[in-house]
Amino acid sequence: MATIDKDWDGNAQNASPDGEFVRDTTYIEDRIVSDVPAQSAPVPQEDGTFHWPVEPGRYRLMAARACPWAHRAVITRRLLGLENVMSQGLAGPTHDWRSWVFDLDPDEKDPATGLHRLREAYLNRFPDYPRGITVPAIVEVESAKVVTNHFPSIPVDMQIQWKNYHRDHAPDLYPEHLRSRIDELASWLFKEVNNGVYRCGFAGSQDAYEAAYHRLWSALDWLEEHLSTHRFLAGEHITLADVYLYPTLVRFDPVYVGHFKCSRNRIAQMPNLFGYLQELFQTPGFGDTTDFQEIKEHYYYTHGEINPTRVVPLGPDMSGLVEPHGREHLPGSPFAPGVTPPGPLPAGEEVKHPEAFQK
Amino acid sequence: MATIDKDWDGNAQNASPDGEFVRDTTYIEDRIVSDVPAQSAPVPQEDGTFHWPVEPGRYRLMAARACPWAHRAVITRRLLGLENVMSQGLAGPTHDWRSWVFDLDPDEKDPATGLHRLREAYLNRFPDYPRGITVPAIVEVESAKVVTNHFPSIPVDMQIQWKNYHRDHAPDLYPEHLRSRIDELASWLFKEVNNGVYRCGFAGSQDAYEAAYHRLWSALDWLEEHLSTHRFLAGEHITLADVYLYPTLVRFDPVYVGHFKCSRNRIAQMPNLFGYLQELFQTPGFGDTTDFQEIKEHYYYTHGEINPTRVVPLGPDMSGLVEPHGREHLPGSPFAPGVTPPGPLPAGEEVKHPEAFQK
Repeated sequence: MATIDKDWDGNAQNASPDGEFVRDTTYIEDRIVSDVPAQSAPVPQEDGTFHWPVEPGRYRLMAARACPWAHRAVITRRLLGLENVMSQGLAGPTHDWRSWVFDLDPDEKDPATGLHRLREAYLNRFPDYPRGITVPAIVEVESAKVVTNHFPSIPVDMQIQWKNYHRDHAPDLYPEHLRSRIDELASWLFKEVNNGVYRCGFAGSQDAYEAAYHRLWSALDWLEEHLSTHRFLAGEHITLADVYLYPTLVRFDPVYVGHFKCSRNRIAQMPNLFGYLQELFQTPGFGDTTDFQEIKEHYYYTHGEINPTRVVPLGPDMSGLVEPHGREHLPGSPFAPGVTPPGPLPAGEEVKHPEAFQK
Repeated sequence: MATIDKDWDGNAQNASPDGEFVRDTTYIEDRIVSDVPAQSAPVPQEDGTFHWPVEPGRYRLMAARACPWAHRAVITRRLLGLENVMSQGLAGPTHDWRSWVFDLDPDEKDPATGLHRLREAYLNRFPDYPRGITVPAIVEVESAKVVTNHFPSIPVDMQIQWKNYHRDHAPDLYPEHLRSRIDELASWLFKEVNNGVYRCGFAGSQDAYEAAYHRLWSALDWLEEHLSTHRFLAGEHITLADVYLYPTLVRFDPVYVGHFKCSRNRIAQMPNLFGYLQELFQTPGFGDTTDFQEIKEHYYYTHGEINPTRVVPLGPDMSGLVEPHGREHLPGSPFAPGVTPPGPLPAGEEVKHPEAFQK
């Protein structure tokens, strides 16, 4: 077992001595792969991890609408049409130090596994599990044991390892000729943007905050410029790079701009980033998996140390997301020729708190 | 003495039992008037207050760049050109429960009165002064005693009682034919906007916050609509009504939208309110008395109970305030024919932390 990240556990002091927030990035790095036969037990690897077989019905993606890292996996599963082969459990938006709870489900138990807290799945696997409990996590349904919570490999493996189970006309989110570019973007986005907003919000000193702020805006300015001539981040269609940026971008105006003090401007004030965000939001898999109410509740309620009143803002007005995005003049389209968008959400997978403009 | 308001003293619990923030509105209601002869002692009135004579050099306006209520008096003094007859002392942006401190001055003492804390001027007048210490306050220089801190009457009396000492070609900010309309707007603005943002920020419960938010945005929507056909709030030129709205409006995007969760949108996203704000900002007396750094430090640093890290945001980018306001198509102009704008700021009265676009 490679021990894993605490993710953010709600303690503003989770910062290095100079005040900069540092995310622990060690995870359970087991993988689910296509070259292990179905029904096999997990196969130990030289690095101490295990490989589990791709197998319809065996696993459940545990996520939470609130969490941007989980949102990547939720979007990928839906774009690829894996709903029928890998079910999905959703924890509620708020929690204490014991982490994610299935309190949106009847009797506060995930209906497929009976788990009340996601923590139980980690303890089922490692009884002395020493680190934080994070989503996304893939859980083996029958044993209710966590298989992996390695957020970077989950979407990639959904694309590559689960390929035989994709829906008809699914996109290739990680095309071979773009993989090195997508990997490069993924690494840069993680450091500068996805984690960059946390570096602002959890800075333990004014100096650390200011350094984080300038670093973040330098990245967002680069993206704004890049997106003036590029419809998507890598190539001319949606790839995993876009899936990685979207969860941060859609949370920016509702949460990061105020709660994390990433306040230079809203994304709605940046024409190219906002047009790009609008186009993604309007694409099935993105906007229809976004629950603003749960997102805001998570951040504003869970982080009592930076929001002691725990009041959750009503704003901002996000209805501009469904207005025309005006990106048609740029070369490309969300999906390549021959690829279709995902169909309607499977029954029961609709967001629980749709905004008026999402209905 | 009519005892006075604590103003906001940095305690989020300063709310009524249902969680709604309620501002105490009792002040020292002494006035400075033109019908008491210069050099007179204050004249007792039947209501227990005193009337003091208008007299050049006798008084000092005590303010702070941070405070919106003080900002009204600072703007009015400058629009009317009272700088040579009533001097100005400025407390720094941050303070503890003992309230405003002259810590921007050499030796942390106001050079005209020798006061270190504004509190001393209140105690000089009332040794057992029981309430909070607020700006604006007018202090008698020689005795270093506070004369009045009744913020609503200070600008009105500057206009009416000090008329003989206005600069040449000064505006009439409170013209007789508009007084009832200005009074009506002043009362409405106080309740719905000026104090409305505090009602959001200091709400002690989610319900109180939500009620305050809807009430505030209803008022701002009315203003947005009104300003689509009106260049200023009352009549065709700047009046005290505009002086009363500006301090809240210019603080909105830097402070209230995030810190007070007035987050539906930024003023920069409301075309008429923003154009109006731009035109005022570009008028001498408004933008040149606005210190964004001190404003942000005050709110974010002083309110540890809603911003425990006390980190002060670097954003937002306010440089749009100096872009063309596009209000020329509306009837009117900042000043009536024959009126001139204030000249350059007197030496020493420049804001201490100008933004790049203010230089």
